[in-house]
Amino acid sequence: MNKHGVFITFEGIEGSGKSKHILQLSADLEKEGFPVVLTREPGGTRIGEKIRNVILDPEHREMDPAAELFLYLAARAQHIHEVIIPALKGNKIVLCDRFHDSTYAYQGGGRGLDFKVVEPFILTLFHYLKPDLTFLLDIEPKIGLERLRQRESLDRIDSENMAFHETVRSNYLSLVNQDFSRFRVIDSSRHYADVHQEILSEARRFLKEQNQ
Amino acid sequence: MNKHGVFITFEGIEGSGKSKHILQLSADLEKEGFPVVLTREPGGTRIGEKIRNVILDPEHREMDPAAELFLYLAARAQHIHEVIIPALKGNKIVLCDRFHDSTYAYQGGGRGLDFKVVEPFILTLFHYLKPDLTFLLDIEPKIGLERLRQRESLDRIDSENMAFHETVRSNYLSLVNQDFSRFRVIDSSRHYADVHQEILSEARRFLKEQNQ
Repeated sequence: MNKHGVFITFEGIEGSGKSKHILQLSADLEKEGFPVVLTREPGGTRIGEKIRNVILDPEHREMDPAAELFLYLAARAQHIHEVIIPALKGNKIVLCDRFHDSTYAYQGGGRGLDFKVVEPFILTLFHYLKPDLTFLLDIEPKIGLERLRQRESLDRIDSENMAFHETVRSNYLSLVNQDFSRFRVIDSSRHYADVHQEILSEARRFLKEQNQ
Repeated sequence: MNKHGVFITFEGIEGSGKSKHILQLSADLEKEGFPVVLTREPGGTRIGEKIRNVILDPEHREMDPAAELFLYLAARAQHIHEVIIPALKGNKIVLCDRFHDSTYAYQGGGRGLDFKVVEPFILTLFHYLKPDLTFLLDIEPKIGLERLRQRESLDRIDSENMAFHETVRSNYLSLVNQDFSRFRVIDSSRHYADVHQEILSEARRFLKEQNQ
Protein backbone atom coordinates (compact mmCIF):
# COMPACT_ATOMS: atom_id res chain seq x y z
CA MET A 1 0.00 0.00 0.00
CA ASN A 2 1.14 3.48 -0.86
CA LYS A 3 0.62 5.31 2.38
CA HIS A 4 1.81 8.59 3.75
CA GLY A 5 0.28 8.75 7.22
CA VAL A 6 1.52 7.07 10.39
CA PHE A 7 -0.19 4.11 12.02
CA ILE A 8 0.19 3.87 15.81
CA THR A 9 -1.48 1.23 17.97
CA PHE A 10 -1.95 0.81 21.73
CA GLU A 11 -1.91 -2.62 23.31
CA GLY A 12 -2.06 -4.04 26.82
CA ILE A 13 -4.06 -6.13 29.24
CA GLU A 14 -7.24 -4.97 30.97
CA GLY A 15 -6.46 -2.23 33.47
CA SER A 16 -3.24 -1.18 31.73
CA GLY A 17 -4.74 2.25 31.14
CA LYS A 18 -4.36 2.13 27.37
CA SER A 19 -7.74 3.63 26.50
CA LYS A 20 -7.18 6.65 28.74
CA HIS A 21 -3.65 7.18 27.45
CA ILE A 22 -4.56 6.91 23.77
CA LEU A 23 -7.30 9.49 24.30
CA GLN A 24 -4.88 11.89 25.94
CA LEU A 25 -2.20 11.35 23.30
CA SER A 26 -4.79 12.05 20.62
CA ALA A 27 -5.77 15.33 22.32
CA ASP A 28 -2.15 16.38 22.83
CA LEU A 29 -1.10 15.65 19.25
CA GLU A 30 -4.12 17.51 17.91
CA LYS A 31 -3.20 20.51 20.06
CA GLU A 32 0.25 20.40 18.47
CA GLY A 33 -1.37 20.58 15.02
CA PHE A 34 -1.11 16.93 13.95
CA PRO A 35 -4.06 15.54 11.96
CA VAL A 36 -5.19 12.65 14.17
CA VAL A 37 -7.78 9.94 13.60
CA LEU A 38 -8.61 8.02 16.81
CA THR A 39 -10.27 4.67 16.26
CA ARG A 40 -10.78 1.22 17.70
CA GLU A 41 -12.20 -2.05 16.47
CA PRO A 42 -14.70 -2.71 15.03
CA GLY A 43 -14.20 0.93 14.13
CA GLY A 44 -17.80 1.91 13.63
CA THR A 45 -18.15 0.40 10.16
CA ARG A 46 -21.62 -0.80 9.30
CA ILE A 47 -20.42 -4.28 8.41
CA GLY A 48 -18.17 -4.39 11.49
CA GLU A 49 -21.10 -3.59 13.75
CA LYS A 50 -23.16 -6.40 12.22
CA ILE A 51 -20.28 -8.81 12.72
CA ARG A 52 -19.92 -7.59 16.30
CA ASN A 53 -23.61 -8.34 16.87
CA VAL A 54 -23.06 -11.92 15.70
CA ILE A 55 -20.02 -12.31 17.98
CA LEU A 56 -21.59 -10.79 21.07
CA ASP A 57 -25.14 -12.19 20.81
CA PRO A 58 -25.52 -13.93 24.18
CA GLU A 59 -27.72 -16.57 22.55
CA HIS A 60 -24.79 -17.83 20.49
CA ARG A 61 -23.44 -20.12 23.16
CA GLU A 62 -22.70 -22.76 20.52
CA MET A 63 -20.13 -20.55 18.79
CA ASP A 64 -16.92 -22.31 17.82
CA PRO A 65 -13.74 -20.47 18.95
CA ALA A 66 -12.33 -20.63 15.41
CA ALA A 67 -15.53 -19.10 14.03
CA GLU A 68 -15.20 -16.31 16.57
CA LEU A 69 -11.58 -15.71 15.58
CA PHE A 70 -12.48 -15.50 11.88
CA LEU A 71 -15.30 -13.08 12.70
CA TYR A 72 -12.84 -10.80 14.51
CA LEU A 73 -10.49 -10.99 11.53
CA ALA A 74 -13.38 -10.17 9.17
CA ALA A 75 -14.30 -7.09 11.21
CA ARG A 76 -10.64 -6.03 11.23
CA ALA A 77 -10.31 -6.43 7.46
CA GLN A 78 -13.35 -4.18 7.01
CA HIS A 79 -11.99 -1.63 9.50
CA ILE A 80 -8.66 -1.53 7.64
CA HIS A 81 -10.37 -1.16 4.28
CA GLU A 82 -12.92 1.45 5.26
CA VAL A 83 -11.27 3.50 8.01
CA ILE A 84 -7.54 2.97 8.49
CA ILE A 85 -6.25 2.89 4.91
CA PRO A 86 -8.25 5.92 3.73
CA ALA A 87 -6.99 7.88 6.77
CA LEU A 88 -3.38 6.87 6.13
CA LYS A 89 -3.72 7.76 2.46
CA GLY A 90 -5.00 11.15 3.63
CA ASN A 91 -1.74 11.67 5.55
CA LYS A 92 -3.41 11.28 8.93
CA ILE A 93 -1.89 9.91 12.12
CA VAL A 94 -4.09 6.94 12.95
CA LEU A 95 -4.22 6.02 16.65
CA CYS A 96 -5.91 2.65 17.11
CA ASP A 97 -6.95 1.19 20.47
CA ARG A 98 -6.05 -2.50 20.05
CA PHE A 99 -5.18 -4.08 16.73
CA HIS A 100 -3.86 -7.36 15.47
CA ASP A 101 -1.44 -7.93 18.37
CA SER A 102 -4.51 -8.28 20.60
CA THR A 103 -5.68 -11.23 18.55
CA TYR A 104 -2.31 -12.93 18.95
CA ALA A 105 -2.18 -12.17 22.66
CA TYR A 106 -5.77 -13.11 23.47
CA GLN A 107 -6.77 -15.74 20.90
CA GLY A 108 -3.52 -16.80 19.24
CA GLY A 109 -1.53 -17.64 22.34
CA GLY A 110 -4.27 -19.78 23.79
CA ARG A 111 -4.51 -21.76 20.60
CA GLY A 112 -0.81 -22.36 20.30
CA LEU A 113 -0.74 -20.98 16.78
CA ASP A 114 2.67 -20.58 15.29
CA PHE A 115 2.88 -16.85 14.61
CA LYS A 116 5.48 -17.21 11.91
CA VAL A 117 3.17 -19.49 9.98
CA VAL A 118 0.19 -17.19 10.29
CA GLU A 119 1.92 -13.90 9.59
CA PRO A 120 2.27 -14.05 5.78
CA PHE A 121 -1.37 -15.09 5.36
CA ILE A 122 -2.67 -12.34 7.61
CA LEU A 123 -0.44 -9.73 6.02
CA THR A 124 -1.62 -10.60 2.53
CA LEU A 125 -5.24 -10.22 3.52
CA PHE A 126 -4.60 -7.05 5.48
CA HIS A 127 -3.00 -5.29 2.50
CA TYR A 128 0.42 -5.70 4.15
CA LEU A 129 -0.66 -3.18 6.74
CA LYS A 130 1.29 -3.26 9.99
CA PRO A 131 1.49 -0.60 12.67
CA ASP A 132 4.49 1.69 12.33
CA LEU A 133 4.68 2.00 16.11
CA THR A 134 3.01 0.10 18.93
CA PHE A 135 2.83 1.18 22.56
CA LEU A 136 2.58 -1.83 24.82
CA LEU A 137 1.36 -0.61 28.20
CA ASP A 138 2.84 -3.27 30.41
CA ILE A 139 1.57 -3.90 33.93
CA GLU A 140 1.37 -6.81 36.31
CA PRO A 141 -2.14 -8.27 36.04
CA LYS A 142 -2.76 -8.04 39.80
CA ILE A 143 -2.08 -4.29 39.72
CA GLY A 144 -4.05 -3.73 36.51
CA LEU A 145 -7.02 -5.71 37.71
CA GLU A 146 -6.94 -3.99 41.11
CA ARG A 147 -7.17 -0.65 39.30
CA LEU A 148 -10.07 -1.94 37.24
CA ARG A 149 -11.81 -3.18 40.37
CA GLN A 150 -11.55 0.21 42.02
CA ARG A 151 -12.92 1.92 38.95
CA GLU A 152 -15.60 -0.44 37.80
CA SER A 153 -16.48 -2.44 40.91
CA LEU A 154 -15.90 -5.80 39.22
CA ASP A 155 -17.76 -8.66 40.79
CA ARG A 156 -14.93 -11.07 41.17
CA ILE A 157 -11.40 -11.48 39.95
CA ASP A 158 -10.65 -15.08 40.61
CA SER A 159 -7.45 -16.98 40.20
CA GLU A 160 -8.48 -18.34 36.83
CA ASN A 161 -8.82 -14.82 35.45
CA MET A 162 -5.47 -13.92 36.92
CA ALA A 163 -3.77 -16.84 35.19
CA PHE A 164 -5.43 -15.89 31.92
CA HIS A 165 -4.18 -12.30 32.14
CA GLU A 166 -0.69 -13.54 33.01
CA THR A 167 -0.76 -15.56 29.79
CA VAL A 168 -1.94 -12.60 27.74
CA ARG A 169 0.82 -10.44 29.20
CA SER A 170 3.47 -12.99 28.43
CA ASN A 171 2.09 -13.42 24.88
CA TYR A 172 2.47 -9.68 24.40
CA LEU A 173 6.05 -9.76 25.64
CA SER A 174 6.93 -12.58 23.26
CA LEU A 175 5.54 -10.49 20.39
CA VAL A 176 7.89 -7.69 21.42
CA ASN A 177 10.81 -10.08 21.12
CA GLN A 178 9.78 -10.96 17.58
CA ASP A 179 9.39 -7.38 16.35
CA PHE A 180 11.52 -5.31 18.66
CA SER A 181 11.84 -2.14 16.60
CA ARG A 182 8.08 -1.63 16.30
CA PHE A 183 7.29 -1.76 20.03
CA ARG A 184 7.73 0.71 22.86
CA VAL A 185 7.14 -1.15 26.11
CA ILE A 186 5.87 1.34 28.69
CA ASP A 187 5.86 0.51 32.40
CA SER A 188 2.29 1.41 33.19
CA SER A 189 2.48 0.70 36.91
CA ARG A 190 3.89 4.20 37.51
CA HIS A 191 1.93 7.39 38.10
CA TYR A 192 -0.42 8.34 35.30
CA ALA A 193 1.38 11.60 34.49
CA ASP A 194 4.78 9.90 34.19
CA VAL A 195 3.37 7.24 31.90
CA HIS A 196 1.69 9.81 29.73
CA GLN A 197 4.85 11.92 29.54
CA GLU A 198 6.88 8.97 28.29
CA ILE A 199 4.27 8.07 25.66
CA LEU A 200 4.04 11.65 24.45
CA SER A 201 7.78 12.15 24.13
CA GLU A 202 8.23 8.78 22.39
CA ALA A 203 5.43 9.67 19.96
CA ARG A 204 6.90 13.11 19.27
CA ARG A 205 10.34 11.61 18.65
CA PHE A 206 8.91 8.97 16.32
CA LEU A 207 6.87 11.48 14.32
CA LYS A 208 9.90 13.75 14.00
CA GLU A 209 11.97 10.84 12.66
CA GLN A 210 9.24 10.06 10.14
CA ASN A 211 9.38 13.56 8.75
CA GLN A 212 13.12 13.55 8.21
CA MET B 1 -9.88 -35.40 16.10
CA ASN B 2 -10.94 -38.91 16.93
CA LYS B 3 -13.36 -39.72 14.15
CA HIS B 4 -14.86 -42.87 12.83
CA GLY B 5 -17.05 -41.68 9.96
CA VAL B 6 -15.98 -40.82 6.44
CA PHE B 7 -15.89 -37.29 5.07
CA ILE B 8 -16.51 -36.97 1.32
CA THR B 9 -16.73 -33.66 -0.54
CA PHE B 10 -17.86 -32.67 -4.04
CA GLU B 11 -16.18 -29.85 -5.90
CA GLY B 12 -16.38 -28.31 -9.35
CA ILE B 13 -17.25 -25.19 -11.31
CA GLU B 14 -20.80 -24.00 -11.97
CA GLY B 15 -22.58 -26.38 -14.31
CA SER B 16 -20.37 -29.34 -13.45
CA GLY B 17 -23.43 -31.17 -12.12
CA LYS B 18 -22.02 -31.67 -8.65
CA SER B 19 -25.22 -30.85 -6.72
CA LYS B 20 -27.27 -33.34 -8.73
CA HIS B 21 -24.64 -36.05 -8.42
CA ILE B 22 -24.12 -35.66 -4.68
CA LEU B 23 -27.86 -35.94 -4.16
CA GLN B 24 -28.02 -39.14 -6.17
CA LEU B 25 -24.97 -40.62 -4.45
CA SER B 26 -26.57 -39.86 -1.10
CA ALA B 27 -29.78 -41.64 -2.12
CA ASP B 28 -27.90 -44.64 -3.52
CA LEU B 29 -25.67 -45.08 -0.46
CA GLU B 30 -28.67 -44.82 1.85
CA LYS B 31 -30.42 -47.50 -0.16
CA GLU B 32 -27.37 -49.70 0.38
CA GLY B 33 -27.69 -49.16 4.14
CA PHE B 34 -24.97 -46.59 4.73
CA PRO B 35 -25.74 -43.88 7.33
CA VAL B 36 -25.42 -40.71 5.24
CA VAL B 37 -25.51 -37.04 6.24
CA LEU B 38 -25.84 -34.73 3.23
CA THR B 39 -24.86 -31.14 3.88
CA ARG B 40 -23.53 -27.97 2.31
CA GLU B 41 -22.21 -24.68 3.59
CA PRO B 42 -23.27 -22.78 5.59
CA GLY B 43 -24.90 -26.02 6.62
CA GLY B 44 -28.02 -24.64 8.24
CA THR B 45 -26.37 -23.59 11.48
CA ARG B 46 -27.98 -20.60 13.16
CA ILE B 47 -24.70 -18.68 13.33
CA GLY B 48 -23.80 -19.67 9.77
CA GLU B 49 -27.11 -18.29 8.50
CA LYS B 50 -26.49 -14.98 10.24
CA ILE B 51 -23.01 -14.80 8.73
CA ARG B 52 -24.49 -15.61 5.34
CA ASN B 53 -26.92 -12.72 5.75
CA VAL B 54 -24.02 -10.36 6.36
CA ILE B 55 -22.15 -11.69 3.30
CA LEU B 56 -25.11 -11.62 0.93
CA ASP B 57 -26.81 -8.38 2.04
CA PRO B 58 -26.97 -6.45 -1.26
CA GLU B 59 -26.54 -3.20 0.65
CA HIS B 60 -23.02 -4.20 1.69
CA ARG B 61 -21.37 -2.94 -1.47
CA GLU B 62 -18.46 -1.61 0.59
CA MET B 63 -17.41 -5.08 1.75
CA ASP B 64 -13.69 -5.75 1.60
CA PRO B 65 -12.79 -9.04 -0.17
CA ALA B 66 -10.66 -10.12 2.79
CA ALA B 67 -13.58 -9.49 5.15
CA GLU B 68 -15.75 -11.64 2.91
CA LEU B 69 -13.16 -14.42 2.90
CA PHE B 70 -12.93 -14.40 6.70
CA LEU B 71 -16.72 -14.49 6.96
CA TYR B 72 -16.80 -17.60 4.75
CA LEU B 73 -14.12 -19.19 6.93
CA ALA B 74 -16.10 -18.31 10.08
CA ALA B 75 -19.23 -19.95 8.68
CA ARG B 76 -17.17 -23.01 7.75
CA ALA B 77 -15.64 -23.28 11.21
CA GLN B 78 -19.14 -23.23 12.71
CA HIS B 79 -20.38 -25.80 10.20
CA ILE B 80 -17.48 -28.11 11.06
CA HIS B 81 -18.02 -27.69 14.79
CA GLU B 82 -21.77 -28.08 14.81
CA VAL B 83 -22.59 -30.43 11.93
CA ILE B 84 -19.63 -32.24 10.38
CA ILE B 85 -17.63 -33.32 13.43
CA PRO B 86 -20.64 -34.58 15.41
CA ALA B 87 -21.75 -36.60 12.35
CA LEU B 88 -18.28 -38.08 11.85
CA LYS B 89 -18.07 -38.95 15.53
CA GLY B 90 -21.42 -40.68 15.12
CA ASN B 91 -19.87 -42.90 12.41
CA LYS B 92 -21.80 -41.24 9.62
CA ILE B 93 -20.73 -40.78 6.02
CA VAL B 94 -20.76 -37.03 5.54
CA LEU B 95 -21.33 -35.86 1.96
CA CYS B 96 -20.64 -32.15 1.66
CA ASP B 97 -21.44 -30.04 -1.41
CA ARG B 98 -18.40 -27.73 -1.63
CA PHE B 99 -15.86 -27.36 1.16
CA HIS B 100 -12.53 -25.71 1.66
CA ASP B 101 -11.19 -26.47 -1.83
CA SER B 102 -13.87 -24.09 -3.13
CA THR B 103 -12.35 -21.27 -1.13
CA TYR B 104 -8.95 -21.97 -2.63
CA ALA B 105 -10.33 -22.29 -6.13
CA TYR B 106 -12.63 -19.26 -6.00
CA GLN B 107 -11.05 -16.84 -3.52
CA GLY B 108 -7.54 -18.16 -2.94
CA GLY B 109 -6.39 -18.43 -6.51
CA GLY B 110 -7.54 -14.96 -7.38
CA ARG B 111 -5.62 -13.55 -4.46
CA GLY B 112 -2.43 -15.40 -5.25
CA LEU B 113 -2.23 -16.84 -1.76
CA ASP B 114 0.47 -19.39 -1.25
CA PHE B 115 -1.51 -22.49 -0.31
CA LYS B 116 1.38 -24.10 1.50
CA VAL B 117 1.63 -21.09 3.77
CA VAL B 118 -2.08 -21.02 4.52
CA GLU B 119 -2.63 -24.72 5.02
CA PRO B 120 -1.22 -25.22 8.54
CA PHE B 121 -3.13 -22.21 9.87
CA ILE B 122 -6.41 -23.33 8.37
CA LEU B 123 -5.93 -26.90 9.51
CA THR B 124 -5.28 -25.84 13.08
CA LEU B 125 -8.47 -23.81 13.20
CA PHE B 126 -10.48 -26.51 11.46
CA HIS B 127 -9.54 -29.15 14.03
CA TYR B 128 -7.22 -30.77 11.45
CA LEU B 129 -10.30 -31.83 9.52
CA LYS B 130 -9.72 -32.63 5.87
CA PRO B 131 -11.95 -34.57 3.51
CA ASP B 132 -11.03 -38.23 3.23
CA LEU B 133 -12.13 -38.23 -0.40
CA THR B 134 -13.00 -35.43 -2.82
CA PHE B 135 -14.79 -35.81 -6.13
CA LEU B 136 -13.76 -33.08 -8.52
CA LEU B 137 -16.34 -32.96 -11.29
CA ASP B 138 -14.23 -31.57 -14.09
CA ILE B 139 -15.75 -29.95 -17.13
CA GLU B 140 -14.77 -27.30 -19.66
CA PRO B 141 -16.39 -24.04 -18.58
CA LYS B 142 -18.01 -23.47 -21.96
CA ILE B 143 -19.79 -26.84 -21.71
CA GLY B 144 -20.71 -26.38 -18.03
CA LEU B 145 -22.04 -22.89 -18.57
CA GLU B 146 -23.97 -23.95 -21.67
CA ARG B 147 -25.69 -26.61 -19.55
CA LEU B 148 -26.47 -24.02 -16.90
CA ARG B 149 -27.86 -21.68 -19.52
CA GLN B 150 -30.21 -24.33 -20.85
CA ARG B 151 -31.40 -25.14 -17.36
CA GLU B 152 -31.61 -21.75 -15.76
CA SER B 153 -31.87 -19.37 -18.70
CA LEU B 154 -28.92 -17.24 -17.60
CA ASP B 155 -28.99 -13.74 -18.94
CA ARG B 156 -25.53 -13.56 -20.32
CA ILE B 157 -22.31 -15.50 -20.14
CA ASP B 158 -19.74 -13.08 -21.31
CA SER B 159 -16.06 -13.58 -21.96
CA GLU B 160 -15.10 -12.20 -18.57
CA ASN B 161 -17.14 -14.86 -16.81
CA MET B 162 -15.62 -17.49 -19.04
CA ALA B 163 -12.08 -16.42 -18.13
CA PHE B 164 -13.01 -16.47 -14.44
CA HIS B 165 -14.35 -20.02 -14.66
CA GLU B 166 -11.26 -21.10 -16.57
CA THR B 167 -9.17 -19.79 -13.66
CA VAL B 168 -11.30 -21.60 -11.09
CA ARG B 169 -11.00 -24.83 -13.06
CA SER B 170 -7.24 -24.54 -13.30
CA ASN B 171 -7.03 -23.71 -9.56
CA TYR B 172 -8.91 -26.92 -8.85
CA LEU B 173 -6.56 -28.93 -11.04
CA SER B 174 -3.52 -27.49 -9.27
CA LEU B 175 -5.04 -28.57 -5.95
CA VAL B 176 -5.29 -32.09 -7.31
CA ASN B 177 -1.58 -32.04 -8.08
CA GLN B 178 -0.82 -31.06 -4.48
CA ASP B 179 -2.96 -33.76 -2.87
CA PHE B 180 -3.30 -36.46 -5.46
CA SER B 181 -4.44 -39.34 -3.27
CA ARG B 182 -7.45 -37.45 -1.89
CA PHE B 183 -8.98 -36.50 -5.24
CA ARG B 184 -10.95 -38.40 -7.84
CA VAL B 185 -11.16 -36.29 -10.96
CA ILE B 186 -14.33 -37.21 -12.82
CA ASP B 187 -14.86 -36.18 -16.44
CA SER B 188 -18.28 -34.62 -16.12
CA SER B 189 -18.75 -33.81 -19.80
CA ARG B 190 -20.02 -37.36 -20.41
CA HIS B 191 -23.60 -38.59 -20.13
CA TYR B 192 -25.14 -38.15 -16.71
CA ALA B 193 -25.59 -41.91 -16.10
CA ASP B 194 -21.96 -42.69 -16.94
CA VAL B 195 -20.71 -39.98 -14.61
CA HIS B 196 -22.93 -41.17 -11.83
CA GLN B 197 -21.85 -44.78 -12.32
CA GLU B 198 -18.18 -43.83 -11.99
CA ILE B 199 -18.83 -41.79 -8.82
CA LEU B 200 -20.87 -44.58 -7.26
CA SER B 201 -18.31 -47.28 -7.93
CA GLU B 202 -15.42 -45.09 -6.73
CA ALA B 203 -17.37 -44.31 -3.55
CA ARG B 204 -18.20 -47.98 -2.97
CA ARG B 205 -14.58 -48.99 -3.47
CA PHE B 206 -13.35 -46.27 -1.11
CA LEU B 207 -15.84 -47.18 1.62
CA LYS B 208 -14.91 -50.83 1.28
CA GLU B 209 -11.22 -49.98 1.73
CA GLN B 210 -12.07 -47.92 4.82
CA ASN B 211 -13.73 -50.91 6.44
CA GLN B 212 -10.82 -53.26 5.90
